[in-house]
Amino acid sequence: MSVLVICPGKNPEEWVKELKNNHPGMNIYIYPEEHDKEEVEYVVSWKHPRGIFRNYPNLKVIASMGAGVDHITSDPEIPDNIAITRIVDEQLTRDMSTFVMALVLDHIRDLSQHFNNINWEPFYYKRPEEVSVGIMGMGVLGKAVAQTLVNNNFQVSGWSRTPVEVNNITTYHGKKQQEQFLNNTSVLICLLPLTQETENILNKELFEKLPQGAYVINVARGQHLVEHDLLEMLDNEHLSGASLDVFRTEPLPQEHAFWKHPKIKITPHIASITNPKSAAAQVAQNYERMTEDEPLLNKVERAKGY
Amino acid sequence: MSVLVICPGKNPEEWVKELKNNHPGMNIYIYPEEHDKEEVEYVVSWKHPRGIFRNYPNLKVIASMGAGVDHITSDPEIPDNIAITRIVDEQLTRDMSTFVMALVLDHIRDLSQHFNNINWEPFYYKRPEEVSVGIMGMGVLGKAVAQTLVNNNFQVSGWSRTPVEVNNITTYHGKKQQEQFLNNTSVLICLLPLTQETENILNKELFEKLPQGAYVINVARGQHLVEHDLLEMLDNEHLSGASLDVFRTEPLPQEHAFWKHPKIKITPHIASITNPKSAAAQVAQNYERMTEDEPLLNKVERAKGY
Repeated sequence: MSVLVICPGKNPEEWVKELKNNHPGMNIYIYPEEHDKEEVEYVVSWKHPRGIFRNYPNLKVIASMGAGVDHITSDPEIPDNIAITRIVDEQLTRDMSTFVMALVLDHIRDLSQHFNNINWEPFYYKRPEEVSVGIMGMGVLGKAVAQTLVNNNFQVSGWSRTPVEVNNITTYHGKKQQEQFLNNTSVLICLLPLTQETENILNKELFEKLPQGAYVINVARGQHLVEHDLLEMLDNEHLSGASLDVFRTEPLPQEHAFWKHPKIKITPHIASITNPKSAAAQVAQNYERMTEDEPLLNKVERAKGY
Repeated sequence: MSVLVICPGKNPEEWVKELKNNHPGMNIYIYPEEHDKEEVEYVVSWKHPRGIFRNYPNLKVIASMGAGVDHITSDPEIPDNIAITRIVDEQLTRDMSTFVMALVLDHIRDLSQHFNNINWEPFYYKRPEEVSVGIMGMGVLGKAVAQTLVNNNFQVSGWSRTPVEVNNITTYHGKKQQEQFLNNTSVLICLLPLTQETENILNKELFEKLPQGAYVINVARGQHLVEHDLLEMLDNEHLSGASLDVFRTEPLPQEHAFWKHPKIKITPHIASITNPKSAAAQVAQNYERMTEDEPLLNKVERAKGY
């Protein structure tokens, strides 16, 4: 029985080291080195080449190296019986909360617009208690970000596909309550998983339901956003600005219209970086669970896509 | 008995309106309009012309229109028997905490350096729990900022002239413990009152006691900072950067070396803006206390200067 690590363009060294630290006997191949496909039952993966998994007849589990699994689920050629797992890491969750707080504070205090502006123009600032933040996606990350913002005096509400309950936060769910959620949101934060249902969800129709002057933050996936709809809504002044950490193509191509747009703040996908040490421990634990026929942790519901 | 409002260069209108709302019978003059100096017992002031108070024989109280009183105490011609009061306002305190959080998060996540940097260079980021913030000045503002940072997982310590105790915060005091405090501080925040003792306190000798690569934030007064010492310590790379919201001359002159320094982030004194509504209520309350011979609230200790 073998483990295959696939992460084209990324250095797998630390992952391999940490997997072996956690499970010394593990037999690990690194894609695309020579290996026996029939031996592989467990894959640790980040952005695998499409379609390769049909060549692994005994594959049981694909473990994502990060919190997202869209890079796996978006491949239509993965047999239904293969389990997919993701990383749920406290550190990663805290990093996301810190990053979103930084973006929201930069926005409400116009911090980076002020920096070294020789015209010395203090703007009137907004206070956290005056700002309604709406979070789309109330999974582990959405809930943690919501709590951090509430703790810092923001008004926070959340929207998700199915109902969730969170202390001190108004929650909405489903298509029916989406409009009410959006109407009450002046800073919209996208933390949704990327699925067929959520792809292109940040579009003109949705933006129009936000109040005039609303601000958009996307820290989920570039594919959530219809780029020309954002540009249109910024240019007609319905939206006041956007902070984007994720893009359809990363790095964002140099010729992309976002780079020079005065109302768009671009960061190079830095919200939260997976720590191989704690992530590999989880992946090794699930490997043991698989070999002992125990239920996997942080298993994705294939039908929902997250 | 009359009240004199002095705030050259500032519009006194909202203050006068709010003072009258709080105390309808108040007889108010606005400097420099014609008024009887013998009648004036109570002055509401922001940056008065030096030396004028010796012409008011019956003056009892000078109420600052803001949290700082250095603009009053720095005038050597104010008789010792005159009481000085300051504003202590919850909103102003919260605004300062929010602003400092925004600056600290911008620093540890290199947020504004990343914004629209077409080179797409994600830097390794620091996490709040890895950052030791040291606050100089543990008055109302210092304590509130410390608490906010602790609530957001930062390691926080405080230094003040005399001992104070604050939950979850290591505190140091006096000259003797200053070095130990500085040795353990990687982000230094100045929130001291401006007095003869604290003027020029942010100087080379102090900076040298900070660890290599420390960051400096000044949100107190420009006079706390020896400007050429900061430039020297940035240029020799002992300090990694500085965020400055206050300056010896404001607006900061266009030709000043700070403007184009790549390691200095300048904001135009926007940390917290006094709300005339709540501040005038306090000033009116103290006016009543004066007329009824009751002890004044938020009275400055003239000997300490704050």
